[in-house]
This record gives sequence, C-alpha cells and structure tokens, in this order.
Amino acid sequence: MDYQALLKNRRAIRDFQDREVPLSVLKEMLQETCLAPTASNGQPCQFIIIRDRRFMKRLSTESKNNFLADVAKDPASPLKKYEAMLRDEQFNIFYNAPCVVYFIGPKGVGSLDVDTGLTAAYFMFAATARGLGTCWIGMGTPVRTPEILKEMGVPGDCEIVAPIIVGYPKDIPAASERHDPVILKVI
Amino acid sequence: MDYQALLKNRRAIRDFQDREVPLSVLKEMLQETCLAPTASNGQPCQFIIIRDRRFMKRLSTESKNNFLADVAKDPASPLKKYEAMLRDEQFNIFYNAPCVVYFIGPKGVGSLDVDTGLTAAYFMFAATARGLGTCWIGMGTPVRTPEILKEMGVPGDCEIVAPIIVGYPKDIPAASERHDPVILKVI
Repeated sequence: MDYQALLKNRRAIRDFQDREVPLSVLKEMLQETCLAPTASNGQPCQFIIIRDRRFMKRLSTESKNNFLADVAKDPASPLKKYEAMLRDEQFNIFYNAPCVVYFIGPKGVGSLDVDTGLTAAYFMFAATARGLGTCWIGMGTPVRTPEILKEMGVPGDCEIVAPIIVGYPKDIPAASERHDPVILKVI
Repeated sequence: MDYQALLKNRRAIRDFQDREVPLSVLKEMLQETCLAPTASNGQPCQFIIIRDRRFMKRLSTESKNNFLADVAKDPASPLKKYEAMLRDEQFNIFYNAPCVVYFIGPKGVGSLDVDTGLTAAYFMFAATARGLGTCWIGMGTPVRTPEILKEMGVPGDCEIVAPIIVGYPKDIPAASERHDPVILKVI
C-alpha cells in the first residue's frame, strides 16, 4: 500500500466485521511497530493482546465504572460530556472489535507518553497496510482493580497508556474534520 | 512510496546535504501531518518553522545552557550522559540541518504528549515520502529566555514538545538496534 493510500485509509474505526484477527498478524504488526523512533531509542512500550470477548467486556465495565467515578469527583472535567454514553449499560467501550491491544510502559519513563504516541502511529499504519482498522480507546485507560490488572499481566511498575482496538472494518469512514495546520511563525 | 519502503527509510537523520527545504514542501508536509489522530480529535499541535541558521544556532546555545543547568541541579538525572557533548562549544544540537520545526501546544491539554507523538510520526513519514529526513531533538525542548520565546512566537499558554529537524539526508543509515516486541500476555 502506498503512503497516500495509507493516509486515506487510516481512520478511527468503530464498526468491525465479525471476523477474528489472527494472532500471527498481530505479532507481525507489533514487529513492525517496534521500528518506531523513541526518545534515546528507549523502546519503553510493552504489549498485552486481548482477544477473549468476555474479558474485553469485563475490561469495558471496569473502565466505565472508574471513568464515571473520576467524573463524579470532578464535575468540571472535560470528560463529563461522555457521562451519558458511559451510563448506558449496553455501551461497550471497545465497540464490536474482536481484539484490543494494550500499550503499557514503566511509570518512571518521562518520555512514555510521546514514545507511546509515536509507537501507536506505527501500529495504526501497520494495521491499515493489512486492511485492518484501529481506534485508540482513551476511555479504556482507567483499569485499577488489582485482580484485573493481575489477570492482564500488567507489572506493578507499569501503567496503561493506550488501549487500541483492532479488527477488519465494515467500511472506511470519511476523515473527521481537520483544521489547516496552525503555523505560528516562519523565521 | 510504499509502506515497506517508508519503514525502511524513516530513520533518525543527523547528517544532511547542503540544500534548503522549500517552504512549500514543509507546508505540504504539515497539511498531511494534520491527518494524524488526536484525543477526541483535539488537534492541539501548532507549528513554528525555523530556517534561519543564525537563529537556529542561538536556539541551540539557549537549549544547551538550560539543559546543562538542569543536569547541574539534578546530578542523578538520566540526562547526565549528554553532559560532555553539550559542553562542546562546537556542538550544534540541530547538527547541520537546514531547518527545524517546533511542535508546540497548550499547557493545559492532558493528551498533549501523546497527541504530539502521533502527529510527529505523521510528520516524519511525510518527510520520508518526499526523500527528506528528520530527527526529534529532545535536547531542543528547554527554551526559556523570554525574548527568544517571543521572537519564536510561542504564546504564553503554550509549551514546546518537539523540535524536529528536517533536511535532505546524505545517506540513510541502518536502523539503530531494536529488541523484539515485549508481549506480556495473550488472552
């Protein structure tokens, strides 16, 4: 796939075909993902692959509950706009995706967020190049119940930065609206 | 350029041909860069393009001084390993690049770092697709002298996240060493 097609086809996908993503394909994607640049080549990201839909449902419920608790504590939170959606018991934060990959990393790494952003972009392009779609589910970050973190295999010194769903898209939606680049100055 | 070639050719470039990057090419790259996904499609990144080599030299000196001051305050800093390099008066943190693009954004945006990581990856691929090379210069982040920030056009409520150099590479080096992806668990 050429670069222009990648750009056109890399969209946030929230509606998937009822088709599993082979583990071998996910592993191949993660191999390419590791070519992403990171601060001082630190490569801090580690991965947890979840394809068990019942476990995904439990993770969805866990994240929704924690997210709602956080919004209740801070009513001025910009996340309050998601409250009604999260109160809907039928709403699964992972939509109907067959798979979610958690990007985690050591809490002490100052560049973890930028490194994960770079690495996630590589993962998204690796998916697009294989006809797959992805969406970074920010709502999936707050997993806190110790038993669940243990079942997931999140080490105590690590934090979840990005849960990214993966699957074969039903279709490729148009890009959500973008403004032109804001170039403040040219010197 | 196809995706595999992009992956192969997107390398950290620190040695450039003596050739300017046309402003129109940089603007075209930033237009594509804006297709990057960001949290809630917030698109927080703004850009400052610097092609004046004398100003780049001033920015290099400013950043080196601040970086060294930070390391002096915290001798246990993991950045201490760069101290000798930064004490070398001949060392320019932007190498011989003809251009640096600063990615900045509002201080209050919680997702600014991950958004900038995603956006920077798009920018790097946009460069690679045009035969250009880039390198994220983390050392260039600490710019603090008010007059310099004003000359750059950094608004008071914004912070610098990523200075990225751009130019035509002398050659494409091999990838720096990568470990295999660390997959902690498959469920």
